[in-house]
Amino acid sequence: MQDVASLVAQAREGRPRAVARLISLVEGASPQLREVMAALAPLTGGAYVVGLTGSPGVGKSTSTSALVTAYRKQGRRVGVLAVDPSSPFSGGALLGDRVRMSDHSSDPGVYIRSMATRGHLGGLAWSAPQAIRVLDAAGCEVILVETVGVGQSEVEIASQADTSVVLLAPGMGDGIQAAKAGILEIGDVYVVNKADRDGADATARELNHMLGLGESRGPGDWRPPIVKTVASRSEGIDEVVEALEKHRAWMEEHGVLAERRAARAAREIETIAVTALRARIGDLHGDRRVGALAERVVAGELDAYRAADELIAGITES
Amino acid sequence: MQDVASLVAQAREGRPRAVARLISLVEGASPQLREVMAALAPLTGGAYVVGLTGSPGVGKSTSTSALVTAYRKQGRRVGVLAVDPSSPFSGGALLGDRVRMSDHSSDPGVYIRSMATRGHLGGLAWSAPQAIRVLDAAGCEVILVETVGVGQSEVEIASQADTSVVLLAPGMGDGIQAAKAGILEIGDVYVVNKADRDGADATARELNHMLGLGESRGPGDWRPPIVKTVASRSEGIDEVVEALEKHRAWMEEHGVLAERRAARAAREIETIAVTALRARIGDLHGDRRVGALAERVVAGELDAYRAADELIAGITES
Repeated sequence: MQDVASLVAQAREGRPRAVARLISLVEGASPQLREVMAALAPLTGGAYVVGLTGSPGVGKSTSTSALVTAYRKQGRRVGVLAVDPSSPFSGGALLGDRVRMSDHSSDPGVYIRSMATRGHLGGLAWSAPQAIRVLDAAGCEVILVETVGVGQSEVEIASQADTSVVLLAPGMGDGIQAAKAGILEIGDVYVVNKADRDGADATARELNHMLGLGESRGPGDWRPPIVKTVASRSEGIDEVVEALEKHRAWMEEHGVLAERRAARAAREIETIAVTALRARIGDLHGDRRVGALAERVVAGELDAYRAADELIAGITES
Repeated sequence: MQDVASLVAQAREGRPRAVARLISLVEGASPQLREVMAALAPLTGGAYVVGLTGSPGVGKSTSTSALVTAYRKQGRRVGVLAVDPSSPFSGGALLGDRVRMSDHSSDPGVYIRSMATRGHLGGLAWSAPQAIRVLDAAGCEVILVETVGVGQSEVEIASQADTSVVLLAPGMGDGIQAAKAGILEIGDVYVVNKADRDGADATARELNHMLGLGESRGPGDWRPPIVKTVASRSEGIDEVVEALEKHRAWMEEHGVLAERRAARAAREIETIAVTALRARIGDLHGDRRVGALAERVVAGELDAYRAADELIAGITES
């Protein structure tokens, strides 16, 4: 068992095994979790976190892979976090359809990690920010967070990112469905992938129309661009990178980046606090204190609210 | 605005308006909630709580109504709580298909209340026990808790009751489906309603077989009886009442009633405590303390765990 300090030092040097070990430690709520997080805190804040969401079949993993290639050409170190909210399996193994990622498997400047959130305490809100922090501290300059599998957690993924990319594809009929599902509120950059297919212009036009339906924007406001790509041939990917850089610059100029990160940290703190308090109560389940209080409630000596007060007092003292 | 003490006194006299007002107070998490619960505590424990669950179409409300009639013949005061987990509407209004309940609408010895749990803080686990306590304190000797609408909360309803009745009907193909869904574990008494229809014997036999598949029971163990009824003609209802009385006597003899009630109170205390702690954290959302902690996390001065510790310390002091 290596100590946390040396693991962190090795991760800083870009050793993938150390990064993997640290993510496992933070993901599994291990006893060293707090120690790891404390060690990482001063090393974080350098990474730019990009979330990629979209329905299955729009080409999320192909696009992610193409973006990795583009950022690598710029010499940036890249982390990829592939989140599968429906899978209980986690760790290094990538899903079958993510073959394209293997293009990067021998590149020491890329760290790829898949992460399951089903069954995890607190789900995505709990585990993703911690894994992002590990990649950040390990020196990844760009972190791409991608959902694998069926959506529903788009909004949650977006809430973890500095910039959210929403992917659509023509002729799937899901562009507008997705829009109705609230995706119009979360996209900072829109990508119409598979733009060599029929209907790409119509999808882009429709999206443009729907985005325009929102309230009119002020002069300093961000207007989400729509970029057409063919990710499998890397067409349009440089334009996506450019749109991301513009959005990042705009956020920095207007204080939005700091705002988003603070909001994210606030949510994370609250999630941890609620989980910790729940756990303290859960630990007491079957405990003599709860049993004794319950018997007094059954006997009518105490009402359940005063019993809960006593329980809380007992928990917060300890 | 009447004071709580006089409302409780009137409810004890059986005045339906006072009972209704008290349930509204406890259901709506009003400022007087705690005062009401404290006033009720010494008056509770007398009622026998029977839960009725089953798929839509098995005749739950007809059976409930027939049971009310049977208990009224014995001169007992009866409360009915019709819980609809899918409806946001609550209060005195009964659903359209519960016409048979109107047989009892002019009987002062019966109090009927429908209760919605969707959208309620904590749902059923939060609001049902409090309404049950009001009916208990108001002098109801038997309280029938019935789910209206689609199931899924069978197990939750059962956890609120002293005795759980599971209703099935022949030829619906749902008997065994229900069994697979875990209903075999929650029934203390099984009722095959609509026993005049084809397949009633087969349903009862199949159920008997499946219940027998469980681990063998010891000499003092409870073996759930299967009663056949035609609730619309009140056939078999006296046998159901008899089975309930036997189960109650068995529970008292073996200390099971006290055990179940203590377990129920323990869960309720925990639910209230968790909800209260969540609310305290929720109140802080957007509060300067969380914001200040979040900024320190973003700056890397503090990790999210230590920030959560500080947040919890701040909450539990106040």
